[in-house]
Amino acid sequence: MSTLQNRQFKLTSRPVGTVKRSDFDFVTTPAGEPGPGEALVKVLYLSLDPAMRGWMNAGKSYIAPVGLGDVMRAGGIGRVIASNDPSLAVGDTVVGMTGVQDYAVAKTRELTKVDPRLAPLPRYLGALGMPGLTAYFGLLDIGQPKEGETVVVSAAAGAVGAVVGQIARIKGCRAVGIAGGPDKCRYVVEELGFDAAVDYKNEDVRAGLARHCPKGIDVYFDNVGGDILDIVLSMLARRARVSICGAISQYNNLDAVQGPRNYMSLLVNHARMEGFVVFDYAARYPEGVQALAGWMFAGKLKAREDIVEGLATFPDTLLKLFRGENFGKLVIKVAEE
Amino acid sequence: MSTLQNRQFKLTSRPVGTVKRSDFDFVTTPAGEPGPGEALVKVLYLSLDPAMRGWMNAGKSYIAPVGLGDVMRAGGIGRVIASNDPSLAVGDTVVGMTGVQDYAVAKTRELTKVDPRLAPLPRYLGALGMPGLTAYFGLLDIGQPKEGETVVVSAAAGAVGAVVGQIARIKGCRAVGIAGGPDKCRYVVEELGFDAAVDYKNEDVRAGLARHCPKGIDVYFDNVGGDILDIVLSMLARRARVSICGAISQYNNLDAVQGPRNYMSLLVNHARMEGFVVFDYAARYPEGVQALAGWMFAGKLKAREDIVEGLATFPDTLLKLFRGENFGKLVIKVAEE
Repeated sequence: MSTLQNRQFKLTSRPVGTVKRSDFDFVTTPAGEPGPGEALVKVLYLSLDPAMRGWMNAGKSYIAPVGLGDVMRAGGIGRVIASNDPSLAVGDTVVGMTGVQDYAVAKTRELTKVDPRLAPLPRYLGALGMPGLTAYFGLLDIGQPKEGETVVVSAAAGAVGAVVGQIARIKGCRAVGIAGGPDKCRYVVEELGFDAAVDYKNEDVRAGLARHCPKGIDVYFDNVGGDILDIVLSMLARRARVSICGAISQYNNLDAVQGPRNYMSLLVNHARMEGFVVFDYAARYPEGVQALAGWMFAGKLKAREDIVEGLATFPDTLLKLFRGENFGKLVIKVAEE
Repeated sequence: MSTLQNRQFKLTSRPVGTVKRSDFDFVTTPAGEPGPGEALVKVLYLSLDPAMRGWMNAGKSYIAPVGLGDVMRAGGIGRVIASNDPSLAVGDTVVGMTGVQDYAVAKTRELTKVDPRLAPLPRYLGALGMPGLTAYFGLLDIGQPKEGETVVVSAAAGAVGAVVGQIARIKGCRAVGIAGGPDKCRYVVEELGFDAAVDYKNEDVRAGLARHCPKGIDVYFDNVGGDILDIVLSMLARRARVSICGAISQYNNLDAVQGPRNYMSLLVNHARMEGFVVFDYAARYPEGVQALAGWMFAGKLKAREDIVEGLATFPDTLLKLFRGENFGKLVIKVAEE
């Protein structure tokens, strides 16, 4: 085992503003060996998520920051190539926090075994993984959409947003997406079945939402923050629920975060804004996975991945997220299956 | 009746920034006569509320703006001096939206009869009136405080804040107030029984809250917005609830409202921010009044009014609110009881 060469991206400085390659060391070391209760996993695909930007910052959040000198944290899917625990066997396919590297030594209780025959592997990092669960709990538990209501989601063609809109449709709601560019908007409506989409790069978002949400917005699932959040706040229906999942427009700010200036719309409309992270729902993951998989196999939940080849492309590939250049769940393919 | 001279403040221009006397005409006209289903009320006390600033602005809110040329809207308490409806008799004491004037003709179904022997009349505009109900529903329904939790309220010596903190204590919570100046802070702790108070004019609010809320803030009842809201957001406990009642620091802004920059604390802590106006709870006013009166007569709920003499002092008296100069519920005494 110890002859395996393991390439790793280690965080060496806390990024100021946009992430730069110079914030990391790209090193090669021998892969470790699994201790008791551990397995050695060969990483096949890595998940790239907006949240990774926050993990690079110092300071308390919902999860400890990545330490300077540590392998950059990332979710991944891979194959067990050595196991020191009876719960996992060589050849098993597992999902977990592998980090940005070729090989990960991980505690087997922090790995989840999945069936590689049921879905393409990258999907376990997207609609059947954390993004899907994020959509599931953030929409249903926080947003609490009711049949006939209007649900708006930003970053609608993204890994989370695409699932949010499709679940909204499944629940009998009107689903309106906000996405960047005509291709994503067409995809969201024609492929995923949203009722409408607003192209924030090419049309006036307020006018578009006004046209597609004539009765106001009952549920807003926010992935972006910033100006779009402010526009939506000004269009809330009474008793609306705003689910705060992310604020990708603000993550690379050099200045202070732009707070939602229209938050007094919460008062006027007796509306609610509530935040969450998917880890809050860890105890309910089985429920979420079962629902998502059920809808997928029933043909009601579609997904798309944007696969970039090569571990070495990190962190440039990560930046695609912040420029809105990915189309579907962004993953890096690290090795052939 | 028609020989009664009625002084009125009519809104003649929409204030830009701070309210000015020149935004009103102060005119004298004959008092009207009550039509069918109406009564003529001699106003004794007028309620001055931060919300009045919002009512002067154009545009949709939870209530229509005061029309240009109309008598300025205000709550008041007065005595029926003529009635054209069997539900009210001459001599009855009533609360309602009388407007800023000496005499109001009002629909009797929009007036509430109160017993003048049970409490000083101004109290029906304060702890036993809309501010008390605002505190009651905004704390209990939105904030949902549980025994042992820490409740923070801004404008703690004000009409609403004082009641919020006392109800928090009644419910077994730790009550921490934010108020301006040593007199108000002493009042809140020594007279009203709050556990602690932070003097935002003379101490560092973050340090003060950190000292008095060692386990974080479970419930925040916000009357002020602005920087204090941002500080509190950064100190929320997990699953905290923020009740948005007002944002007096922002009402006279010439620039855009300052949105809460730390709103992502909602995500990190799975916390909630929800707004309301007391009118949302109209169907439950009897429940609220009964509870407030019960606590008052049991000696658990104290109140204080800041009474300014003379209708003519409006709108200068109103400005005391925005400068934080009032100490207790601010009312104008219009006539002798």
